[in-house]
Amino acid sequence: MTDQVRVTARSTALRHRERATYERSVVNQVLDESLVCHVGFAVDGRPFVIPTIHARIDDRLYLHGAPANHMLNSLRGGVEACVTATLVDGLVLARSAFRHSLNYRSVCVFGYATDVTDRAEKLAALDALVDHVLPGRAGRVRRPNETELLGTLVLRLPVDEASAKIRTGPPADHPEDVELDVWAGVIPLRIISEAAIPAPDLPSHVSHGPFRRM
Amino acid sequence: MTDQVRVTARSTALRHRERATYERSVVNQVLDESLVCHVGFAVDGRPFVIPTIHARIDDRLYLHGAPANHMLNSLRGGVEACVTATLVDGLVLARSAFRHSLNYRSVCVFGYATDVTDRAEKLAALDALVDHVLPGRAGRVRRPNETELLGTLVLRLPVDEASAKIRTGPPADHPEDVELDVWAGVIPLRIISEAAIPAPDLPSHVSHGPFRRM
Repeated sequence: MTDQVRVTARSTALRHRERATYERSVVNQVLDESLVCHVGFAVDGRPFVIPTIHARIDDRLYLHGAPANHMLNSLRGGVEACVTATLVDGLVLARSAFRHSLNYRSVCVFGYATDVTDRAEKLAALDALVDHVLPGRAGRVRRPNETELLGTLVLRLPVDEASAKIRTGPPADHPEDVELDVWAGVIPLRIISEAAIPAPDLPSHVSHGPFRRM
Repeated sequence: MTDQVRVTARSTALRHRERATYERSVVNQVLDESLVCHVGFAVDGRPFVIPTIHARIDDRLYLHGAPANHMLNSLRGGVEACVTATLVDGLVLARSAFRHSLNYRSVCVFGYATDVTDRAEKLAALDALVDHVLPGRAGRVRRPNETELLGTLVLRLPVDEASAKIRTGPPADHPEDVELDVWAGVIPLRIISEAAIPAPDLPSHVSHGPFRRM
């Protein structure tokens, strides 16, 4: 049996159930490949959705920011979170407007985030956050000093109650539309990195290695 | 004076105020360039964040989906929304882990969404949703018939209470770190479209025009 995340009424897809999966390996892969996530929470019933970087270690998702960060302080204060990561893989162009779609992979993680106070876990999380942006980067930069460690809030959200949703493949046109003189198919999308722009104050003797993330 | 969206306590950036803007032209541009948005709302205090396609006409943002869609039904039932659109423009690589960042443009729109019942507005919104995915596409496909119109819920959210946040430029390293032997700068990111994949049932006489979205 495959390892699954916890499935609850809330994390169960109501629509397009055929697109839903609760396999931990899929959830992890979408979280790892998404450069940013969107953190949702409500304060006095009013919703906020904030984009931020995340990183995963095993079944723990880490978020970080400044000590005065409104989102992090709401979450550590006991406000529930829904963290959603989305990858858009392609435009699905059908013959009818109605059947247009996107190919995508998305994950929602629900739960409560807590402060990371253990020094070793905090350092590991901060390394993971840098490596999430660019694998291997954490080992090449100056690591956080004491002031910076104190000046960074790190929260841990268990990847426990979650779900993934995936659409792949060609458009599903209505049979009557197939003979229309309209092009149909998929336009795959991909994120690429372009030529690196050195910092204006970069000494000329510092070169950079291979940087292509994608 | 430039045209601004409505600035409230909630839409005012608390951190990195220098990155915030409330200019309508900037808000609109980020919404238009983002292929998807993330819709946040809370039901019984529990948050949800759902990725979906959107489209803007003037100062109205449109969302759509199936009549049984949980998100749309929550919103039309009077639940407040926070719709966030995010563009990630680059990786900001500093000498220290602490100063790493992303170049990005994001927008949050707060408010209540309502049903679009006017037939002309609904058709215009559905055209805009298809054109948002691929400009000019709505004019080349079969438009919605009566069954499909009835089978689609369209909601309108005013782009009124909103804010944009933007980071651009090189890393801001600590002066003491500048001489470190660590490459620093920006890796720009871009979404590209790859070679179109025709639908398996596409008749051979149907060719497609120029499709590159980006």
